[in-house]
Amino acid sequence: MTSAFQTAGNSLAGKLVRTQGVTAPAGFRGAGIAAGIKASGKSDLALVFNEGPDTAAAGVFTRNKVKAAPVLWSQQVLSAGKLRAVVLNSGGANACTGSGGFQDTHRTAEEVATALSNWGTETGAGEVAVCSTGLIGDRLPMDKLLPGVTEVVHELAGGISGGTDAAYAIMTTDTVPKQAAFHHVDKWNVGGMAKGAGMLAPSLATMLSVITTDAVATADQLDTALRNATRLSYDRLDVDGATSTNDTVLLLSSGASGVTPSQEDLNAAVLAVCDDLADQMMADAEGVTKRVRVIVSGAVSEDDALIGARTVARDSLVKTALFGSDPNWGRVLAAIGIAPIELDPDRIAVSFNGSPVCVDGVGAPGAREVDLSGEDIEVTIDLGLGDFTVSIRTTDLSHAYVEENSAYSS
Amino acid sequence: MTSAFQTAGNSLAGKLVRTQGVTAPAGFRGAGIAAGIKASGKSDLALVFNEGPDTAAAGVFTRNKVKAAPVLWSQQVLSAGKLRAVVLNSGGANACTGSGGFQDTHRTAEEVATALSNWGTETGAGEVAVCSTGLIGDRLPMDKLLPGVTEVVHELAGGISGGTDAAYAIMTTDTVPKQAAFHHVDKWNVGGMAKGAGMLAPSLATMLSVITTDAVATADQLDTALRNATRLSYDRLDVDGATSTNDTVLLLSSGASGVTPSQEDLNAAVLAVCDDLADQMMADAEGVTKRVRVIVSGAVSEDDALIGARTVARDSLVKTALFGSDPNWGRVLAAIGIAPIELDPDRIAVSFNGSPVCVDGVGAPGAREVDLSGEDIEVTIDLGLGDFTVSIRTTDLSHAYVEENSAYSS
Repeated sequence: MTSAFQTAGNSLAGKLVRTQGVTAPAGFRGAGIAAGIKASGKSDLALVFNEGPDTAAAGVFTRNKVKAAPVLWSQQVLSAGKLRAVVLNSGGANACTGSGGFQDTHRTAEEVATALSNWGTETGAGEVAVCSTGLIGDRLPMDKLLPGVTEVVHELAGGISGGTDAAYAIMTTDTVPKQAAFHHVDKWNVGGMAKGAGMLAPSLATMLSVITTDAVATADQLDTALRNATRLSYDRLDVDGATSTNDTVLLLSSGASGVTPSQEDLNAAVLAVCDDLADQMMADAEGVTKRVRVIVSGAVSEDDALIGARTVARDSLVKTALFGSDPNWGRVLAAIGIAPIELDPDRIAVSFNGSPVCVDGVGAPGAREVDLSGEDIEVTIDLGLGDFTVSIRTTDLSHAYVEENSAYSS
Repeated sequence: MTSAFQTAGNSLAGKLVRTQGVTAPAGFRGAGIAAGIKASGKSDLALVFNEGPDTAAAGVFTRNKVKAAPVLWSQQVLSAGKLRAVVLNSGGANACTGSGGFQDTHRTAEEVATALSNWGTETGAGEVAVCSTGLIGDRLPMDKLLPGVTEVVHELAGGISGGTDAAYAIMTTDTVPKQAAFHHVDKWNVGGMAKGAGMLAPSLATMLSVITTDAVATADQLDTALRNATRLSYDRLDVDGATSTNDTVLLLSSGASGVTPSQEDLNAAVLAVCDDLADQMMADAEGVTKRVRVIVSGAVSEDDALIGARTVARDSLVKTALFGSDPNWGRVLAAIGIAPIELDPDRIAVSFNGSPVCVDGVGAPGAREVDLSGEDIEVTIDLGLGDFTVSIRTTDLSHAYVEENSAYSS
């Protein structure tokens, strides 16, 4: 959790907690229900509602060229820089579903707008973002989803626990809900929730995340804060190199605190929340038995450091070695060696959990005896060429990962 | 096996067999012994010897920036375009071993040259290529390797089985030796052996391969034939996206047949042998339970088809689904969608073993019921944009892969 503040490069005055999420900032309500979209009967429909007074918003979406219907819809909606609500469903991605699937998304947004208007807040479908997660390729059961929308709007009447209910409703293979909130000493707040356990990779993970704030900020300021935060947090989480068709991160501001923080403080607070949520996603990734940080330092550019760290973080042989608690540093060298970056094999130094295992490209004494039996492993690779450092979060490659992802249409 | 000839694009007159390898062409001898480099006591030292009259040769090496000592040595030796012998050891990669490791390689080549000279063929160390495979990071036990060199030279006196002995001696986690030979009707031949079961990826696999021919050809002609063959065979085998520090493919010609084939025929015959060896490596890859072909067609360029096929072939979620015999075509769409190539999501068609599962980016009827329980799976992705097609060999991601690669310093 300290990393967020280090990365932000300043000392942000406030407190980060994990007991609250999107409803921690003033002006937001949340709800989550079981609408029957999931065959299991578990909670599967969430709503985040912005009571205002402001409705400025920003979004970041998957870079996958195959985009799910809700991504196409929400990108369109966000072009106006305003959001009144976000409706999210698990139990189906509504991806690769053609024009029929897009109509389903549009219909869902209209149903939310109607229900919110009936509930007392005049809302247009163009102010409602839609997020979906689950199996790719199937149409959503609209006969269950649409009645669910009316129900979830009624649930908004609940208190602060509505944010937690929403965090539960967006879970797929996640085993725990992920929430974080940052309370600034100047009495403005940022809250967030996220889901994502597999298909986690750069260009966002298979993740949905909604961040809220009661700070006063324009859509442009929110956009700056959100892009900065995703670049340094979610984009540096790489579990399996896969990038989803549905990745969506939204930032909504209500302005209800009446406080206008500096852009720098807003950036730092949004990053703090996203970074903590990224940490929670790493810890709950599919099949994870080791939480791994791959740090590349001494690179000639930030890009080189990032590409190098990502290449090692994705390497199946490194990841299986870490699963086996095996300090097989040769695989780290082989992995960094294929990264398309500037490097000198004779200057590379590698350490595991701070113990040097390779110096100047050659094994260090005792390298094979380093203890990696714990759950947290830090792999540091110093290229010895420049001043740039990047850290990537990843996991090991375990039997449980294979098991979870080989079950029929998981 | 027919694929080699299809890829070659001509009808090569001859016969491919798997019962012979590097000693199938006239003018070559081979040997393999247990020198004690492997703790298991298994065969670990191989020699391929070219009796001539010619000694033209070519080589292709790993593109990993971290190169093992034997790769650095053999690249240097090959600059003269001549090879009298290749010595290969398993039981240690001699990678990341610094200048001491390079001296070990040099010393090995000198020992081979001395032993061959004593045996009756005047040889310089600069005519001896060295290949090593095994764990990265440890020095080789020279006290065992050097006496082994004398012994393996004496073993050259044996007959045609020497090629098979050599193929056994280069095995690491391979479960079977890999050999192939092509006998042209015009009475010239190409033979080869290869090893490689893990760390298999583009830019060659963790593989060593020695190809021999008794055709008359210059070093330049051999180089052309070898680069064409590796580009279309070994470079299109991608088991785990990892590229070794030691990959080496060598082509030696003895000219002993006295026949000078056309460059086209030489290309085709070398490709036929390499392609068959690549097929054998796929079938024996670490933890393989499915042999998978990923074919991308309808691409606007060969590069696009290749990058697209490779991206899908490397996708952990596709590979685990295939392990589970799960026709989860949505993961194929999600994978191809992140490939940096030209594509239109609404024109993509996917089929599994010939059954359409996705048409125009949307699921086809019966897609979830396609039977993938067999050992061979063909995933075809038609981008519908152009005329280029590339096929990549890969495997599933199984429990056995994780098991084999998580054992201590495997």
